[in-house]
Amino acid sequence: MKFFASDNYAGAHPKVLDAVQKANTGDARAYGTDPWCQEAGALLREAFGENSRVFFALSGTAANVLGLKALLRPYQSVICTNTAHIATDECGAVEAACLSKIETVPGKNGKLCLSSLERFPERRKEVHYPYPKVLSVAQLTEVGTRYIAGEIKALSSWCRENGFYLHMDGARLANAAAGAGVSLKAFTAEAGVDVLSFGGTKNGLLYGEAVVFFDPQLAEDFGRIQKQGMQLLSKMRYVGAQFTAYMTDDLWRSNALNANNMAALLHHEIKDLPDLALVYPVEGNILFVRMHKDNIAKLNASFYFYTIDASDAENFPSDWFLVRLMTSFSTTPEEVMEFVQAIRRCCS
Amino acid sequence: MKFFASDNYAGAHPKVLDAVQKANTGDARAYGTDPWCQEAGALLREAFGENSRVFFALSGTAANVLGLKALLRPYQSVICTNTAHIATDECGAVEAACLSKIETVPGKNGKLCLSSLERFPERRKEVHYPYPKVLSVAQLTEVGTRYIAGEIKALSSWCRENGFYLHMDGARLANAAAGAGVSLKAFTAEAGVDVLSFGGTKNGLLYGEAVVFFDPQLAEDFGRIQKQGMQLLSKMRYVGAQFTAYMTDDLWRSNALNANNMAALLHHEIKDLPDLALVYPVEGNILFVRMHKDNIAKLNASFYFYTIDASDAENFPSDWFLVRLMTSFSTTPEEVMEFVQAIRRCCS
Amino acid sequence: MKFFASDNYAGAHPKVLDAVQKANTGDARAYGTDPWCQEAGALLREAFGENSRVFFALSGTAANVLGLKALLRPYQSVICTNTAHIATDECGAVEAACLSKIETVPGKNGKLCLSSLERFPERRKEVHYPYPKVLSVAQLTEVGTRYIAGEIKALSSWCRENGFYLHMDGARLANAAAGAGVSLKAFTAEAGVDVLSFGGTKNGLLYGEAVVFFDPQLAEDFGRIQKQGMQLLSKMRYVGAQFTAYMTDDLWRSNALNANNMAALLHHEIKDLPDLALVYPVEGNILFVRMHKDNIAKLNASFYFYTIDASDAENFPSDWFLVRLMTSFSTTPEEVMEFVQAIRRCCS
Amino acid sequence: MKFFASDNYAGAHPKVLDAVQKANTGDARAYGTDPWCQEAGALLREAFGENSRVFFALSGTAANVLGLKALLRPYQSVICTNTAHIATDECGAVEAACLSKIETVPGKNGKLCLSSLERFPERRKEVHYPYPKVLSVAQLTEVGTRYIAGEIKALSSWCRENGFYLHMDGARLANAAAGAGVSLKAFTAEAGVDVLSFGGTKNGLLYGEAVVFFDPQLAEDFGRIQKQGMQLLSKMRYVGAQFTAYMTDDLWRSNALNANNMAALLHHEIKDLPDLALVYPVEGNILFVRMHKDNIAKLNASFYFYTIDASDAENFPSDWFLVRLMTSFSTTPEEVMEFVQAIRRCCS
Repeated sequence: MKFFASDNYAGAHPKVLDAVQKANTGDARAYGTDPWCQEAGALLREAFGENSRVFFALSGTAANVLGLKALLRPYQSVICTNTAHIATDECGAVEAACLSKIETVPGKNGKLCLSSLERFPERRKEVHYPYPKVLSVAQLTEVGTRYIAGEIKALSSWCRENGFYLHMDGARLANAAAGAGVSLKAFTAEAGVDVLSFGGTKNGLLYGEAVVFFDPQLAEDFGRIQKQGMQLLSKMRYVGAQFTAYMTDDLWRSNALNANNMAALLHHEIKDLPDLALVYPVEGNILFVRMHKDNIAKLNASFYFYTIDASDAENFPSDWFLVRLMTSFSTTPEEVMEFVQAIRRCCS
Repeated sequence: MKFFASDNYAGAHPKVLDAVQKANTGDARAYGTDPWCQEAGALLREAFGENSRVFFALSGTAANVLGLKALLRPYQSVICTNTAHIATDECGAVEAACLSKIETVPGKNGKLCLSSLERFPERRKEVHYPYPKVLSVAQLTEVGTRYIAGEIKALSSWCRENGFYLHMDGARLANAAAGAGVSLKAFTAEAGVDVLSFGGTKNGLLYGEAVVFFDPQLAEDFGRIQKQGMQLLSKMRYVGAQFTAYMTDDLWRSNALNANNMAALLHHEIKDLPDLALVYPVEGNILFVRMHKDNIAKLNASFYFYTIDASDAENFPSDWFLVRLMTSFSTTPEEVMEFVQAIRRCCS
Repeated sequence: MKFFASDNYAGAHPKVLDAVQKANTGDARAYGTDPWCQEAGALLREAFGENSRVFFALSGTAANVLGLKALLRPYQSVICTNTAHIATDECGAVEAACLSKIETVPGKNGKLCLSSLERFPERRKEVHYPYPKVLSVAQLTEVGTRYIAGEIKALSSWCRENGFYLHMDGARLANAAAGAGVSLKAFTAEAGVDVLSFGGTKNGLLYGEAVVFFDPQLAEDFGRIQKQGMQLLSKMRYVGAQFTAYMTDDLWRSNALNANNMAALLHHEIKDLPDLALVYPVEGNILFVRMHKDNIAKLNASFYFYTIDASDAENFPSDWFLVRLMTSFSTTPEEVMEFVQAIRRCCS
Repeated sequence: MKFFASDNYAGAHPKVLDAVQKANTGDARAYGTDPWCQEAGALLREAFGENSRVFFALSGTAANVLGLKALLRPYQSVICTNTAHIATDECGAVEAACLSKIETVPGKNGKLCLSSLERFPERRKEVHYPYPKVLSVAQLTEVGTRYIAGEIKALSSWCRENGFYLHMDGARLANAAAGAGVSLKAFTAEAGVDVLSFGGTKNGLLYGEAVVFFDPQLAEDFGRIQKQGMQLLSKMRYVGAQFTAYMTDDLWRSNALNANNMAALLHHEIKDLPDLALVYPVEGNILFVRMHKDNIAKLNASFYFYTIDASDAENFPSDWFLVRLMTSFSTTPEEVMEFVQAIRRCCS
């Protein structure tokens, strides 16, 4: 069985595992005060700006939830697209940890648009609504598209003008930066993001995400949010070691580039097939396509991937289902081409 | 600098790290549906009983909090000693996740006593009190003592009679079972525990704890409690691999035995020193002693350990502080004897 | 200034106030154990069925939130229409008290439809989604329409088949029952509702709502949910006295009938005006109409009512805004006709 | 049956009920924007200082919980005595609404002492402890004693120096101010209190408490805390009307004086009885006494009062139980003397 289901089906990059091994040298102070976490913090501050403050969390959900918790009071709300991971895939973790409402708006190709935000500042006047306080965007978006820096800047400017914070779910920020050929700062510090979840697990780590604050004041209490939020490991050194490897020689970039390149290859090879329809622009390591359900069943005999609830299909017959295909740092051209052959047999 | 501060200052056991390495073989299903988690689950069920249900969490705090969350509604309370980790060292994580009150009672040598529980069933009649519902005990206790099976059974019988659940914080259950020379079941399934946090990190894992339910019904919704509680990793296979190694050839037991033996050695060598006082029976890998603060300062030049807030010292001069000394799976006799020499120089 | 803004702009019915006065006779036991609460409970059980269990809350929001809290664990979700009061007008109170996600679906004339529920049972298989557990309907709906008993029964049957609970926000249940000429049971106990918020404040009380459970088991812990939820008053006798008056001689029905009749009169008199459009069927005491914003401004000089955010107007010019008009137990035909004259001057 | 159980067993003062009646005049804007709430707010600001900000809540628990919620983040804790109402009588409402831990310390005659606070600032250094942030004192205390202004000032100075807030549960502030013959400001604004629950229900209102902020910045978001906390009534005018009556001609003071005087009379008449022991100084409307349980049983035949869990009795035979006796605004000298006669028959 080959997997094109998710980048989190991949293993860990050998350099990451090697760093964990090397960190296993006798006793060390616990709870993130060890040398590996110090080094990782320094490398991350180098990447995101000296003014940034860096903490670790163990899952992408945790990084998002706790970053948002630093920004939100229970009577405030966070606005995101209706495809956002925080709204759809975290089992109500934001509500349970922050007590806050998530307000969703339709996106365009998965992106949050200024035009959908107009009504929110007005709502602050009425106590019957939650006080809208945070925008959350995902880079890459959950549908595989990439905000350009200008789009993020437009949102952050709107935030500044209206007293909002801008949160970024950067589970795949590496893929975005690698794809655009820019620095990690370009889509974050330089684009006006306030708090970032910087993904590691989906791009070659065993486990571990970073929560990055671009305004040190926002990070002031985060040590306790992390502890109370059950994300402060005693042997945090192994997370530090992984992030040190990840940030050394831009491993994050080469890993992400491979994932992107494999998605581009897959895209190139199947985009013109007659019985398959691309749904969103392919700007990272994710493709969304529609196929007839029988073709999906045939492919699933040898390849595993997600078929999404197709209830909102428009312009398609109801037996054409929505499918998500994803590549990772470890996907090979051979694997892609094998998959391509199978798709061609079904869809042409 | 040598560390006798905590067993979580130690690294990971080589067999554990080796298992992680071996699990790094290409793609695997995410979120705990991989073969390593399946195998670890089978081994844990073998150890804890076929009727048990096993989940993983990433930190001891998380294992405790989520296990308790499965047992508690917000208007219910959990009772524990005033030295319990859940009450003193988790930054209010139980309150924040469960919305429940923790009610503390004095313990005897760190153990919860039946005599302190009398008033609680009566309180259920009055809605102005939280409804007491769960007892939580730690095995080993936080002061290093060990419940005998009969003590746990007495508490669980009381729970059955009074409609309570019994939760065990087993961060150091391995040390207790190894010390008593019994099975893991003896202090848990066979003693009437309902939910257990079974510690791994403090006894040789990189990260990872198990939450074990002895009544499958109590575990029914736990998958979502785990997900919403931010403890469901995508690459859970590495936790599964670690627990597989941990349960193979009773690695948990040999690791714990070494920690216990090193504590016993330390105890034996210093117990009769004139300027040092043992505070609690030494029944695992933890010693609590009192020393003059000047002696602590001298020792701290070469050895790191925790000096506890001494405000409740009784029968001692106020400049004799309380000190916690802890050994781990990786502590060596040489390290202990070096420490012993230093203590002798100070305290005799 | 005349008010057609909300039925909660009205005062209290004289019989209600009289009952409060009469209850002010010296000392009485606190927290709902007084004779007035006992009597009110008996009358409410008479109306809703002997098997029902009745508690009081102080606001409609509180009644909804706590009723839902009795049904929901944090990792479970409640499904309602996107116009539901619990989703739009309670400042995130459900999320904050229950920690649960509210999932909204489009309604038809404000009503929840079976066809929108299909995808939810399936979602229980995946821990990444909250576990859908409760349907919540409002009777009257927030747009002034009324479920027929058959519609509620269809939803409750679906709930039984799929392991859901059915919650009813009955802030205006009195208006629904009075309008349909049926008993309070007809839309609740006999239609399969599990938990009801039975409104008093909007229909002639000073303050006070009832939370009614139709399955005693669901009510078992509600005393503590009420206390912890800050809805247990010490001098609860005054709420009991009000509900006693409310249930005596069907005061609830005559009050609601007046409100409905006044809405019907208003409806009849303006429905054919050329420059005004009815938006929803008028089946209680609420009208939604669209008018040109200039006409709204003219009317607002003498009459106060709510103009709703018009951003989702379809088939209307963008300067025709949505307006809500509401009558109450105390609205008089003279007030309505005065309003009608003013509307006629603007809209014809 | 005569009641000396609680001041909340009393009814409402006739002037209060009269004000409710007078406020029942047709339509009025909802949610606290009516003229009665405006007037009450003005009178309360006059009493507490022009810089104060006033909101209403419906129960004492609610006033405490929401006032604390304005001051606390979930990872912060509130410190109070182990007899504090917020710790013992609110069914975990603070934990459930604020997610915060309550840390209790022993009091002296029910009062919080500076000497018990020493260890808390230090705890802020360690993320494993909640961040201590608020002191909460009750005036009167729960055991009936009264802080002098100097004691409150010493606590508020400590708060200023250490970055804490001072919260006051003033459920019986009226009794304290009346007893000391000072203004309401003297124990609050002028003594450095940050947030106050100002009790009404226990002193002659039907229902209603005020939450008073002495720093407007702390009150900024309170409208939403109140709404989300289910304490914003639509017909809030009736609470406003009650508080207007309460603040007019110092009704609060004359009501409280009567309660205090009746307690003083009771105290005077029984204090020297041989078989009864006073436990705390009587400085308001509350007496705590110990009596033999047989005497309690005899008295309970005609008089209702609370017998407290006697498990912590010291210096007393175990069959001498602790009893709380309370008077109210409506207690008469005749009622007291009748009770005195009965006590004399038992205890001398």
